[in-house]
Amino acid sequence: VIRITVRPRRPPEPAYEIRIGRGLVPRISVDLRRRRLASRYVIVTDSHLQRQGDGLLAAFRRRGLAADLIAFPAGEESKSRRVRDELEDGIIRLGAGRDTALVALGGGVVGDLTGFVAATFTRGIPYVQVPTTLIGMVDAAIGGKTGINHPAGKNLIGAFHHPVAVYADVDHLRTLPERHFNSGMAEVIKCGAIADRGLFEFLEGHAARVARRDPETMARLIEACCRIKARVVGADPREASRRKILNFGHTIGHALEVLTGFRLAHGEAVAIGMAVEARLAARAGLLAEGAAERVAALPPLFGLPVALPPGIDPQAVLEVARRDKKTRAGRIACALPLRIGAMASRGGDYGIPVDDALVLEALREARAARPRPRRLIAPAGL
Amino acid sequence: VIRITVRPRRPPEPAYEIRIGRGLVPRISVDLRRRRLASRYVIVTDSHLQRQGDGLLAAFRRRGLAADLIAFPAGEESKSRRVRDELEDGIIRLGAGRDTALVALGGGVVGDLTGFVAATFTRGIPYVQVPTTLIGMVDAAIGGKTGINHPAGKNLIGAFHHPVAVYADVDHLRTLPERHFNSGMAEVIKCGAIADRGLFEFLEGHAARVARRDPETMARLIEACCRIKARVVGADPREASRRKILNFGHTIGHALEVLTGFRLAHGEAVAIGMAVEARLAARAGLLAEGAAERVAALPPLFGLPVALPPGIDPQAVLEVARRDKKTRAGRIACALPLRIGAMASRGGDYGIPVDDALVLEALREARAARPRPRRLIAPAGL
Repeated sequence: VIRITVRPRRPPEPAYEIRIGRGLVPRISVDLRRRRLASRYVIVTDSHLQRQGDGLLAAFRRRGLAADLIAFPAGEESKSRRVRDELEDGIIRLGAGRDTALVALGGGVVGDLTGFVAATFTRGIPYVQVPTTLIGMVDAAIGGKTGINHPAGKNLIGAFHHPVAVYADVDHLRTLPERHFNSGMAEVIKCGAIADRGLFEFLEGHAARVARRDPETMARLIEACCRIKARVVGADPREASRRKILNFGHTIGHALEVLTGFRLAHGEAVAIGMAVEARLAARAGLLAEGAAERVAALPPLFGLPVALPPGIDPQAVLEVARRDKKTRAGRIACALPLRIGAMASRGGDYGIPVDDALVLEALREARAARPRPRRLIAPAGL
Repeated sequence: VIRITVRPRRPPEPAYEIRIGRGLVPRISVDLRRRRLASRYVIVTDSHLQRQGDGLLAAFRRRGLAADLIAFPAGEESKSRRVRDELEDGIIRLGAGRDTALVALGGGVVGDLTGFVAATFTRGIPYVQVPTTLIGMVDAAIGGKTGINHPAGKNLIGAFHHPVAVYADVDHLRTLPERHFNSGMAEVIKCGAIADRGLFEFLEGHAARVARRDPETMARLIEACCRIKARVVGADPREASRRKILNFGHTIGHALEVLTGFRLAHGEAVAIGMAVEARLAARAGLLAEGAAERVAALPPLFGLPVALPPGIDPQAVLEVARRDKKTRAGRIACALPLRIGAMASRGGDYGIPVDDALVLEALREARAARPRPRRLIAPAGL
């Protein structure tokens, strides 16, 4: 038998910039024209953002950029094979080739879907993220995760593909529905809890200013989150385990999303998940009791729940979480805080295996949790 | 405006081994069991290889590996969205997750389709290539190109995703239809012409031994080709232009495939393309006349054409080639030999721009080309 070893080398992924501020959208076309990323552009957006999409398209064309627009129906249902295929057909009909770049104007659905089409069109073309939601600005624009849903699971079909630029214009936040805005704040709280004590303490003291969506404040919060995520994503691949800290609140949170049939918004589920996992960290002897209570006290200041939704059984949560990919040798592995702003690791691994009994205790405590959310959010009210 | 630079780092792509020899297939399950690549396997094959697939499946199960088999209809038509979706549904129904690896048993269609499904299932799972055709052994198993066709173009939807192992069992070649075998030989000739003078001269002297498909000889030929491709694919990314040498014969060849509605086999089109592009290199003052004639004389020894198919107009070939992605500033860029076994570059670029007039001359010469192929292959006879 002849053996040949192949050592594939791929070019390093290019660095890209996230810009955060007010009035950015009108400047995108100027910036892209200067950078000559592509010889033509297709702006992709959803039906709720058709007006903003038309505005962006007009700006591109005024600057002499060859550009077109495709809008698909708004909603998570569009993260589907059908809409993916339609989007591919659409850009092909518009004459797209390797010299084309996509521009994703919208929230997570637009970003994930557009990014995935960009990842697999002629084995990869560039795309630009223009997030219009808080969660998109702090979360979806970094990490390169793209994909669509399958009836058997969310994001089951996807690829890693980083954008070539991100424009986070905080002016978009003014018109964001309150529940959506609050859901995004759960990711901001998470960033503080896992890696930035100063951010966490700022949130404890300035809930009212955040509720007003003060643009300066929002830009600073988004910046803090992006810096944390950029650091984690840009870390040495040998430290890949550090990425797991981004899962804080997500092991329990994801199980709650499943058990409520996704009637909880993602951020609501993560808020409850953080409260439960912080108490779990306390019971595991990692986090001080007082710090766990501070983690559980913060989400309600931003209209987010921390108690298990009525009718949700702790045992059922445990079982769904066990079925999740994050189990290690039968025990659930969670990202757990050591103190506010720092996560625990064992032997370099940030996925800490925990006993079922402790998980159940923390879940039972969340069933009777006080303080209640400032405003009650009905899980069925989406 | 706040600016944050993100420097994504992805882990280096793991090295993998190509094994070439006789009687390899029965040993695959032993090898995979030892390597613990995955906790379950799905073998993917086509309807023509159902029997071999069943044999491989039985071997996996005898070794205690959790394995299943999916077979789709043989033929290029299966490189489609529909079959891709069915394959995804199939592996999901079988319980596939991140811990699953796919095993592609078949020719280029099986490899490209299976590789693409592996590239995008949960953002990438491992896959193993078991090529059963000559072209698959020398070509498709290296380079990581995966994908499906779209009505608007071949491989329009795809991704780069390298296999974790390749098993090239030359026993598969015994039953390969002659036209398919010959088509694969075009890639072997190309490898000699672009990078291995010794290989080229071996082919000039041993056509009969190759026609008998002597296993030792075939293993050596496949090894030589794989070493060349592994070197090019593994080259420093800053030398990415060197990959273009693999395009020798393909600029003209691809135009001929399009103009004949893909009735020419890929290798047949490439054989004609190599003869034309070698003469073009001679006219451009790069390659000696005698060497160009040797390149044009070799394919007919392996039942491959070197003359333009009847009714194909040189001007039409030129126009289709110009529309191709490989044009530079309006001029066609080709990979051209400098001598047998070495390709020309200009300023580090292996895509050499050539004048239309020279291309037309070389094409006209191919219209009246002598010697004729040893055996006439009717383009419509697929």
